[in-house]
Amino acid sequence: MEEIKVFCPATIANVSCGFDVLGLALDSVGDEMTVRKIPENSIRITKILGQDLPLETEKNVSGVAGLALLTKSDYEGGFEIEIDKRIKPGSGIGSSAASSAGAVWAMNELLGKPFSKLELVQFAMQGEKLASDVAHADNVAPAIYGGFTLVRSYEPLDIIPIPTPSELYATVIHPQIEIKTSDSRKILRTTISLAQGIQQWGNLGGLIAGLYQSDYDLIGRSLHDYIVEPIRSILIPAFDKIKANAIEAGALGCGISGSGPSIFALSKGESNAKKVAASMQETYKNIGVPFDIHISKVNTQGVKKIA
Amino acid sequence: MEEIKVFCPATIANVSCGFDVLGLALDSVGDEMTVRKIPENSIRITKILGQDLPLETEKNVSGVAGLALLTKSDYEGGFEIEIDKRIKPGSGIGSSAASSAGAVWAMNELLGKPFSKLELVQFAMQGEKLASDVAHADNVAPAIYGGFTLVRSYEPLDIIPIPTPSELYATVIHPQIEIKTSDSRKILRTTISLAQGIQQWGNLGGLIAGLYQSDYDLIGRSLHDYIVEPIRSILIPAFDKIKANAIEAGALGCGISGSGPSIFALSKGESNAKKVAASMQETYKNIGVPFDIHISKVNTQGVKKIA
Repeated sequence: MEEIKVFCPATIANVSCGFDVLGLALDSVGDEMTVRKIPENSIRITKILGQDLPLETEKNVSGVAGLALLTKSDYEGGFEIEIDKRIKPGSGIGSSAASSAGAVWAMNELLGKPFSKLELVQFAMQGEKLASDVAHADNVAPAIYGGFTLVRSYEPLDIIPIPTPSELYATVIHPQIEIKTSDSRKILRTTISLAQGIQQWGNLGGLIAGLYQSDYDLIGRSLHDYIVEPIRSILIPAFDKIKANAIEAGALGCGISGSGPSIFALSKGESNAKKVAASMQETYKNIGVPFDIHISKVNTQGVKKIA
Repeated sequence: MEEIKVFCPATIANVSCGFDVLGLALDSVGDEMTVRKIPENSIRITKILGQDLPLETEKNVSGVAGLALLTKSDYEGGFEIEIDKRIKPGSGIGSSAASSAGAVWAMNELLGKPFSKLELVQFAMQGEKLASDVAHADNVAPAIYGGFTLVRSYEPLDIIPIPTPSELYATVIHPQIEIKTSDSRKILRTTISLAQGIQQWGNLGGLIAGLYQSDYDLIGRSLHDYIVEPIRSILIPAFDKIKANAIEAGALGCGISGSGPSIFALSKGESNAKKVAASMQETYKNIGVPFDIHISKVNTQGVKKIA
């Protein structure tokens, strides 16, 4: 195989009580990327559609992630990348992770899969480091593994794929405002009360159990974050109203996607996810906030070949 | 049925990263209790073997738990209780919880099971309140449900039974020193760093996933508590040495049982659990600390009828 075209899913990180550890992949939102082999031992980004992003390899997340892979490979050639960028950067649904994950996944296919998924995550994390100064895995892990993934630890990197109940849908609304990940990190407190911690790990335990059991009610009861959400949500227009209305419309739970500004809700079934979308839209229309909205099944496959 | 004899399992609460939320029941360590119906609408404790504990209903945890059940029942009679107390109070393996849970479980059987397991836990929690001033559920929940239980929340009380891998064994060593639960609570810090919290809920997520998947290696990788254990373990003789030797001997993980002083280890298979027991014994023999030691499969049934 000399060339491959892949779908690179958008992802939701910081799934409520799973702050910094739990993420999931989306099915109907993502970039497309074409990667082809070239004889020179280098990475070239030849075309980017949809966004104004740097073509220089060292300044582009897919370039940096690809170089990390190339360095560890005994392949003597290189790759050329074309990106059809459909996920808006800064939206909080893993735009940089999609490009990083897609690039290394595609290269691994073209080389006959010499690397494991865990290794691909490690390469893609270098792209995340370029994008936000932190080599975090909470978006690239679900982008590569699909479904829900738990990043149990970084030293050593330990990624646990968690089963996805078949009727789980996500609704994501993206208010068109900019929050920098670095700003969103700055406002976090560095200490929490032990009581809050206990509540959070109790809920995360419940959420993981709910996902294993396809117990939607338990998933809903567990989707809370009393630690980060109350602080970060002040940067997001009408967060409390959006959330209250989404729950009222039937969502199992609702929270901040990544470091925002996108807000996600999880629902049982597409029909509920659509009602939640309608409620979210109405809220932002009423107060005049421009937005994008997505409804998607949880993607259980991760990056995939489309041509 | 007028009379029932039950086995009331010892339990391990605060299972490492599951501090305050995750407990498990033991199979070969527990009290025995006989409960019989009496015509008067009251609870009488007629005999306690093995320990010098109060016979007055209001001062005995099984009496108090039984009264909580009796108050909510339309049964016009009462119960008489005999306790063969085999779990030492203050050992950190749920001595009071066994008596509270055993009493209300037995009464519920004699009345034709009018109450759910969740309600039985609520009654038994009143016994825990008498014993330690806090109506905690982390021992009574596994005593009643069996296996591993997650106390996701208290308001409302939400208990999630978690599957138990079939080859999971516990080794528990009880150094013969006294630590009061209240003292052990006092030395805890009330705040933790957000980074420690993230590490803890990452590990708890991994542990729950490991239990669902019967992935012993993942269970082992997740059995860490960097928050409470480093503080409380200073009250337990040679904790670090016991733990290091237990891991060396093949334990998946090792931690403080409840608020101590007992130390538990989990192992895959009885043969490993015995090797761990030998290593723990040797450590305490060498430094002259008297101890009890138990090896037990995880009990998946909870309190059970034995006659």
